[in-house]
Amino acid sequence: MDRMFANRRRALQRRMAEEKLDRLVLTHSADWYYLTGFTGDSGALVVSRETGKGAAIITDGRFTAQAGDETSGVRIVKQLGALYSSVGKYLLEGKGRRVGFDPGQLTVGQHSELLRATGKRVAWQKAPGLTARLRMRKEPVELAVMRRAARVADEVMAAGAAMLKPGVREFEVAAEIEYQMKKRGASGVAFETIVAFGSRAALPHARATAKRLKKNELVVLDLGAILAHYCSDITRTYYVGRASSLVRGWYGAVLEAQAAAIAAVRNGASCGEVDAAARNVLAGHKLDRYFVHSTGHGLGLEVHEDPRIAKGQARLLEAGNVITIEPGVYFPGIGGIRIEDDVAVHASRSEVLTRVSRDFTEL
Amino acid sequence: MDRMFANRRRALQRRMAEEKLDRLVLTHSADWYYLTGFTGDSGALVVSRETGKGAAIITDGRFTAQAGDETSGVRIVKQLGALYSSVGKYLLEGKGRRVGFDPGQLTVGQHSELLRATGKRVAWQKAPGLTARLRMRKEPVELAVMRRAARVADEVMAAGAAMLKPGVREFEVAAEIEYQMKKRGASGVAFETIVAFGSRAALPHARATAKRLKKNELVVLDLGAILAHYCSDITRTYYVGRASSLVRGWYGAVLEAQAAAIAAVRNGASCGEVDAAARNVLAGHKLDRYFVHSTGHGLGLEVHEDPRIAKGQARLLEAGNVITIEPGVYFPGIGGIRIEDDVAVHASRSEVLTRVSRDFTEL
Repeated sequence: MDRMFANRRRALQRRMAEEKLDRLVLTHSADWYYLTGFTGDSGALVVSRETGKGAAIITDGRFTAQAGDETSGVRIVKQLGALYSSVGKYLLEGKGRRVGFDPGQLTVGQHSELLRATGKRVAWQKAPGLTARLRMRKEPVELAVMRRAARVADEVMAAGAAMLKPGVREFEVAAEIEYQMKKRGASGVAFETIVAFGSRAALPHARATAKRLKKNELVVLDLGAILAHYCSDITRTYYVGRASSLVRGWYGAVLEAQAAAIAAVRNGASCGEVDAAARNVLAGHKLDRYFVHSTGHGLGLEVHEDPRIAKGQARLLEAGNVITIEPGVYFPGIGGIRIEDDVAVHASRSEVLTRVSRDFTEL
Repeated sequence: MDRMFANRRRALQRRMAEEKLDRLVLTHSADWYYLTGFTGDSGALVVSRETGKGAAIITDGRFTAQAGDETSGVRIVKQLGALYSSVGKYLLEGKGRRVGFDPGQLTVGQHSELLRATGKRVAWQKAPGLTARLRMRKEPVELAVMRRAARVADEVMAAGAAMLKPGVREFEVAAEIEYQMKKRGASGVAFETIVAFGSRAALPHARATAKRLKKNELVVLDLGAILAHYCSDITRTYYVGRASSLVRGWYGAVLEAQAAAIAAVRNGASCGEVDAAARNVLAGHKLDRYFVHSTGHGLGLEVHEDPRIAKGQARLLEAGNVITIEPGVYFPGIGGIRIEDDVAVHASRSEVLTRVSRDFTEL
């Protein structure tokens, strides 16, 4: 593990050299974990290109002991006073004038605090997404964990579906789903579990409520587990009762759209192409205007990472990417259908990590 | 409910008038909920001071239907393209040159996108914490919900303690705790449940692991539920076996420190005074250097809000504040003790919301 984190820091230092950065301030906790193993919630990581200097975590008294336990080859600096003033002071003690930061990971207020602390002695450079870029290419050890996280999602989806009897409440199903994740070793949910019955299924991000399931309703279950730090994310749509041919038609169209997008996932394909594959199928069924979100997103230490699988995205998929493919259609006041799986991109094939049956299922 | 949200927007408009702001861009989801009832994850809220104009939510297709269902008197604008470009375009269509934003809630990158979109036609003003300030003063309806959230935390703490038998794993206890929350109607956890056995209790923010409980270990349980959008937060420390007089002494000191801080909580007291009350007691026991964090924090729609109960904080407590009081001592390699409760400040008294026994308990 220690060597794995050190290798990642070396890869980052190479990227820093390309960007001519002497040092980089990382303020995003998923990046700290990726580069050092530190799981604390508050602090900053400074990576230096200077030989033998390496990395330092500045964090407060709640996390210093933990940071020491969790990391190796990283200096732990106890924060004194406000975090970004402390980071500034630490930077002034070291060498290297060109210091990078990620404008997407630092608030305007934090940035001002850093500028105040360092004055003219640091030349601040915007350096967006350096670690995010590394994190997009999952290593074999990460893929192995993500397969296990997907397996937990599969098993828990089955447990959730088994609860779908008329009378059950949305939040009861959510509670069971999350309990089943934890029983399988998940540290938590990747996001608040979505359980949406009937017309609430028309809201892509419906929170579970006290609503009871009735006969002849669509049910959307969207869930994900965090296992050993990595996220899974799966959606299935069920029907309770006997569906009309209209509903069956909608379901068939979404399934076809998802299959087309999954087939389009390959090393070298653009993210926009994958999105278009799903969107075109739905357009063929005159359903594209009910598909109100993008086709998917990267997945890993966070449930939403790069790359985005959305309209017009020119970025090319590459081996090691893990993305969701989740087309859906939503009819306000009526209901909605979404089918989502996690897909890993390999050099010459792709691999669907989640495996629950996608067949139309009446319960 | 609709009137409650409208009243809050009016209170914000009065604050905006004091700050001479024509419009305010709110980018923090807890603030949207507070001001409109919208529970989406992505978007922006623009509040205008112009009579009859009120508020608009700019959000993407995943959330427009939901935003319409959840709000009243708020215009819903569908985002086209990138979020902050859309917000910029919306601002250019309306009136009012002085537009505020919260530098603590907007990243440097988002801020740049807004500046690019509006050019010189908007005079951007930093306006930190306008809504946070309103949110600090809980209304009776909010306090009523927070009492219920505290009750859930109490009951679940008892359920967690009942599981503390040698051999049980940390994550099994965490799973049971979170399941019991959900069964009581919680929508989720306010934060990842902390279950720390033995020497892991020395880490104030220990994540639950596969570690099994042994006899003669300290156990720290720190948990909180989200009920009807509001958070609770409670910590108890138990001992499994027969504790030494040293451990009893530590526990007694932390309990005394907590009681002193709770006694110091009153309308008009400074946050620094409350912190000092706990810290001084621990200093009297020569334990203050093991108290490595601040005494507490505000609680409400988020688990960490203003005010901070920390060293030197000059802010005065006022009626409606709800804060945690959570002194602790941590001995690296040995263990830790923390006792935490939620306290509401009223005009002429304070009210401890969480009620599980604080007596030293050997299991």
